[in-house]
Amino acid sequence: MTEKELLKYAKNIEPTNKHLIEKAFERINNLTKPVGSLGRLEEFASKLFAIYNGVMPKKLKKVVYVFAGDHGVTRKGVSAYPKDVTYQMVYNFLNGGAGICVFARHVDADVKVVDVGVDYEFPTGTALISKKVGKGTKDFTEGPAMTVEEAVSSIFVGIECAKEAIREGYNLLIPGDMGIGNTTPSSAIIKVFTGEETTKVVGRGTGIDDEKYKNKMNIVEKAIELNKPDKANAIDILYKIGGFEIGAISGFILEGAKNRVPVVIDGFISTAGFVIAYLLNQNVKDYVFFSHLSIEPGHKRVLDYIGEKPVLNLNMRLGEGTGAALASTIIEASLKMYNEMATFEEASVAREIK
Amino acid sequence: MTEKELLKYAKNIEPTNKHLIEKAFERINNLTKPVGSLGRLEEFASKLFAIYNGVMPKKLKKVVYVFAGDHGVTRKGVSAYPKDVTYQMVYNFLNGGAGICVFARHVDADVKVVDVGVDYEFPTGTALISKKVGKGTKDFTEGPAMTVEEAVSSIFVGIECAKEAIREGYNLLIPGDMGIGNTTPSSAIIKVFTGEETTKVVGRGTGIDDEKYKNKMNIVEKAIELNKPDKANAIDILYKIGGFEIGAISGFILEGAKNRVPVVIDGFISTAGFVIAYLLNQNVKDYVFFSHLSIEPGHKRVLDYIGEKPVLNLNMRLGEGTGAALASTIIEASLKMYNEMATFEEASVAREIK
Repeated sequence: MTEKELLKYAKNIEPTNKHLIEKAFERINNLTKPVGSLGRLEEFASKLFAIYNGVMPKKLKKVVYVFAGDHGVTRKGVSAYPKDVTYQMVYNFLNGGAGICVFARHVDADVKVVDVGVDYEFPTGTALISKKVGKGTKDFTEGPAMTVEEAVSSIFVGIECAKEAIREGYNLLIPGDMGIGNTTPSSAIIKVFTGEETTKVVGRGTGIDDEKYKNKMNIVEKAIELNKPDKANAIDILYKIGGFEIGAISGFILEGAKNRVPVVIDGFISTAGFVIAYLLNQNVKDYVFFSHLSIEPGHKRVLDYIGEKPVLNLNMRLGEGTGAALASTIIEASLKMYNEMATFEEASVAREIK
Repeated sequence: MTEKELLKYAKNIEPTNKHLIEKAFERINNLTKPVGSLGRLEEFASKLFAIYNGVMPKKLKKVVYVFAGDHGVTRKGVSAYPKDVTYQMVYNFLNGGAGICVFARHVDADVKVVDVGVDYEFPTGTALISKKVGKGTKDFTEGPAMTVEEAVSSIFVGIECAKEAIREGYNLLIPGDMGIGNTTPSSAIIKVFTGEETTKVVGRGTGIDDEKYKNKMNIVEKAIELNKPDKANAIDILYKIGGFEIGAISGFILEGAKNRVPVVIDGFISTAGFVIAYLLNQNVKDYVFFSHLSIEPGHKRVLDYIGEKPVLNLNMRLGEGTGAALASTIIEASLKMYNEMATFEEASVAREIK
């Protein structure tokens, strides 16, 4: 896929039909409960109904794709963890011991792991989906993180993965991330997107100390100064200050939206991926749920900026898709509310006294 | 059970061992994730570990008991719904069509329905658990809602139900409520407990208009003025301005705490039940999770008053145990995090650079 083809592809994503939201409420308001009393569950159900274009599925088949990539900027000491943890965690995903594995099993979602750009040669013969675009990004304080072609390729990895997932019958998609150092490019992307001050969009990631935090802020500023990403141009931002897994997440979201399949966005990194997709076509917002509010300060900024509210707020900041997996079961509850609750007529329950 | 026996019973509820919280974190901090990165999930897991007295169960067996009762004060027009909806909803629970049935199935919890004080004669031969203390409370704007004996009996209903549940192997308890008009006694209880102004603790319940809302505030004030409940005396509050299902919920919580079984509290009504239990023995706080923040304004007041934070905030106000059922699956995720996530050693993942 060329950059031109990608732009054309993204342009064709349509908004949902907003009349379907109203139509969903015709049923929701007939269910045996006071009008509005299931609060945001009602909002979620009506959004699902619009995403599925008026045909609610009987049940959800959920999948998490964890996209892994390395970051050249880690050599500047932006993370509390050594870079090798990226590939080590890939094995942990494959072995079912990571947080996302536990939560995905809990909510009955499958987990797939994709190497988009880990700086490690994995052996063949595992369940790992190998789609390596490069062996980690370059240090973006010294030039662009990747080439334009690599940026487009990383997005295409996400598109292909979502296409495969939908072909396999999944009707709810969850992108997740793994990449030591990836809060740094995410902060940079969100700083460019929102125009916020650095202190407002850079957090402590895996838990760095004051000195490293200061360093991380300098690095984000330096990367933006040096590369001068164009805030209106998604590909320009991604190739200059992004990451391979962030690109893949954006493609995953685009392809979900294109196929009218809901995508549950995890935390800070996945939201950076969302930003790239959103800059390619704002209609993607119609197809996503923001699962939780990360304690990374930039997450609240970007959600406020685009006017979205998360499902959960549990002070999480693990990534991997963990927040999205947990929220997906709340969203699924809203679908079951819509499908399974009795109406006043069915249950012979008296209505409100007018 | 006499009032004296009840007070003695409640006195014997012990606090959890706070060292176990620290002990839980020894494991939690060894799991393959940055320290603290699962936020409140870590808090939930450590609280569970303390509740279960240091022996984490392999899995949860969850049950919702929906306690139903009627309220004499409904004749003063405090609800948007006719009183008959209480018994009609009991049938809806038994038939599996109510919100709580749908959410309980979703989170793999069983549902039991208990008639504590519905003003209706149910036929025998259904799954309804019949523990009727009275046919609805009396109108508490004209005298006490019930007798002291009835208050104690309603608490005992909850104790018996929790005892039976625990005997059946349930290790997570969820009380739910059904009772048209029951936000009115709940507001009165919470006003007495917190000492807040009436406007701060009275909400619109099922969705009443301005006129009915004003009336409801007057009724709450009148009930308190007339009955003068003693704010330090749980039984005094319950018999004068409470409800049968509220009493049962408090007993259910007490017996859970007594047996070191966690209880997930639903919204406003269940929190009023919690207040009665808490006034009998503050140690019950160690054993409960507050599931969600109701949009009833008094709910936030009472949670702030006792220093507790809800798991979810989804603008819900249905009751029945719906918010607690949803939150229970998040709490269960924390247990699985504790039990199933790999440690750094197990997964050969490098630790933080110090």
